[in-house]
Amino acid sequence: MKFKVDRTLLQRALAHIHGVAEKRNTIPILANVLMSFENDVLRLTATDMEIAVVEDVPATGERSGSTTVPAAVLFEIVRKLPDGVALEFDHQDSEAPLALRAGRYATSLNVLPVDDFPAMVAGDLPHRFSLPAATLRGLIDRTKFAISNEETRYYLNGIYLHVAENGATPMLRAVATDGHRLARVETDLPEGARGMPGVIIPRKTVNELRKLLDEGAADLEVSLSDTRIQFQAGPVLLTSKLIDGTFPEYERVIPKGNDRILRVGKRDFAAAVGRVAAISQERSRPVKLSVTQNMLNLSATSPDQGVAHEELDENAVSYDAAPIEIGFQARYLTDITDQIDVEVEFAFSDSSAPTIVRDTASPSALYVLMPMRV
Amino acid sequence: MKFKVDRTLLQRALAHIHGVAEKRNTIPILANVLMSFENDVLRLTATDMEIAVVEDVPATGERSGSTTVPAAVLFEIVRKLPDGVALEFDHQDSEAPLALRAGRYATSLNVLPVDDFPAMVAGDLPHRFSLPAATLRGLIDRTKFAISNEETRYYLNGIYLHVAENGATPMLRAVATDGHRLARVETDLPEGARGMPGVIIPRKTVNELRKLLDEGAADLEVSLSDTRIQFQAGPVLLTSKLIDGTFPEYERVIPKGNDRILRVGKRDFAAAVGRVAAISQERSRPVKLSVTQNMLNLSATSPDQGVAHEELDENAVSYDAAPIEIGFQARYLTDITDQIDVEVEFAFSDSSAPTIVRDTASPSALYVLMPMRV
Repeated sequence: MKFKVDRTLLQRALAHIHGVAEKRNTIPILANVLMSFENDVLRLTATDMEIAVVEDVPATGERSGSTTVPAAVLFEIVRKLPDGVALEFDHQDSEAPLALRAGRYATSLNVLPVDDFPAMVAGDLPHRFSLPAATLRGLIDRTKFAISNEETRYYLNGIYLHVAENGATPMLRAVATDGHRLARVETDLPEGARGMPGVIIPRKTVNELRKLLDEGAADLEVSLSDTRIQFQAGPVLLTSKLIDGTFPEYERVIPKGNDRILRVGKRDFAAAVGRVAAISQERSRPVKLSVTQNMLNLSATSPDQGVAHEELDENAVSYDAAPIEIGFQARYLTDITDQIDVEVEFAFSDSSAPTIVRDTASPSALYVLMPMRV
Repeated sequence: MKFKVDRTLLQRALAHIHGVAEKRNTIPILANVLMSFENDVLRLTATDMEIAVVEDVPATGERSGSTTVPAAVLFEIVRKLPDGVALEFDHQDSEAPLALRAGRYATSLNVLPVDDFPAMVAGDLPHRFSLPAATLRGLIDRTKFAISNEETRYYLNGIYLHVAENGATPMLRAVATDGHRLARVETDLPEGARGMPGVIIPRKTVNELRKLLDEGAADLEVSLSDTRIQFQAGPVLLTSKLIDGTFPEYERVIPKGNDRILRVGKRDFAAAVGRVAAISQERSRPVKLSVTQNMLNLSATSPDQGVAHEELDENAVSYDAAPIEIGFQARYLTDITDQIDVEVEFAFSDSSAPTIVRDTASPSALYVLMPMRV
């Protein structure tokens, strides 16, 4: 193959896909990107056999063909070439290295055979719907932090995307939990999603997908079966295996009837949590919330360093129920408040029971936090 | 003690000194900052028993006294308090915690006894001179990268500051070397430095000192004996032990008579080094320079990934001696070119002999680089 491609376009595409290629892999070809040129399109593919990302880049050339080269090295080189330079790729035959020339820079990259590059078969994807990029971004950002890292509970290592009833209305819902907190976000059910199976999208797929959502504001096409999911985001097609497991019946851990409602300004609350938590360098120590009539006292204790507290009054706080003292891990609080703009709502039951947290401006998101003993 | 201090001033001072306090130390009090308030001055001191930093901050109060509290925690708290808030410190007696109140935030910090805080005795410092902050910054930045990390050669773990003759003119000179490269920078000998002993300033001291040089452009007062050095930078006094060792006779490794002179534009050269080195992820692999009449070809090879080269021509290169091929570690080249603005000058002898590198715009700096076999 022989073609020219714009450096900026190629860099952007490689930025999307090089993260999927495995850097340290016992199977060397998984570190490579597959490049195929045909009909004025350069197609780039990277895969770790769990995820495959394919992106098309416009290119011009005289000879079609394909080969595979190390993804990380190619990305690094393209990143360092000056903006606006034309990149000329030339691959004579399947044994030869891939030649790249850009101005006075030239490289010969070692190749591995195209036939060894694993194809990821998506199979039949019977369910298909569209989602605005901003909507999918919202589903991801407001749940991702709660994904579990515990490999033994592999069925929690992703976001559970499924159809659920909100009253009588079917919604598309994303849920993640690590057993200490749970995040549940929903959006109107897109046309075509009705009848889809509930699927668990692995963390790495979530992260790679998230990268694609920063740029365009366009719609994404989502297709899925019960073992695969595919996202078409403009010129990028991401295909992923799904986690083969059963997501727990999370609704059972969402308490009903928590009726002690605290509303607090997000900025004041998040700043106060950060300050009182600063007393301890152990991140798992709790921050205690002591709530009385329109008053919130936050406090933290470190056996080594001392104690800290901060008071928020009726300027920031609204509370009208029985006083309560309850403790939460500081980072769990800030992970949630990071997703809230203006006002946080807590619905408490008692000091040892799960608490519900909401964004008063956004009823579509709900968080559950397990308290810590304080 | 009881006093008020401006949050921004205290934060700036703690930023200077908290790095000196040891975070993980078997001697707990070394993690603390000593705070002393007297006569409208808050004096902060941190030490690791090798370095001590003392900074004075204006404060107002009614009761003098002193105590010690964890430096990292105090810094973290002050950093997180809102700008412009007044900080009220109150310490009732030596057993009690230190109370800090800032608006609606309050903390009680555990203290350790002042008497246990180690005093660093500078002793008599007979040599004393002034240096502009920018001059000292230049001495540090252009030598620091060459400081050795090898603990067995402890006498190379710092910058050697000493008086040396340049022709018949005595200069103040800073030298660092790790055996692979050497950096030598000099400046006019300040009044008072004549007769000073050569001293080796430890790396940590260099780093802490460098932090103080970012802000002010004022002069520094330097005082030293053969075991201690002290820098007064405005309100900050840094005292450090010196490395007790003999710096090697570095002049012997600076080659004389290297007469094959290559001049090359810094930007083009540094970019080309970065691009050709990108072929290999092993940072220690060499970049080969092949120099002919007004031409420089840079190349690098990776057994796994391939080869890369780039050509710089007479637009960027001037060379009029016998052709040479010579290899250097890419990072060693960029460490030096990072300190050069416009044009780099290489003076080669042959492919296996030390090469001299200079900034054509700044004769006060000289670098020696050992080649690698290519």
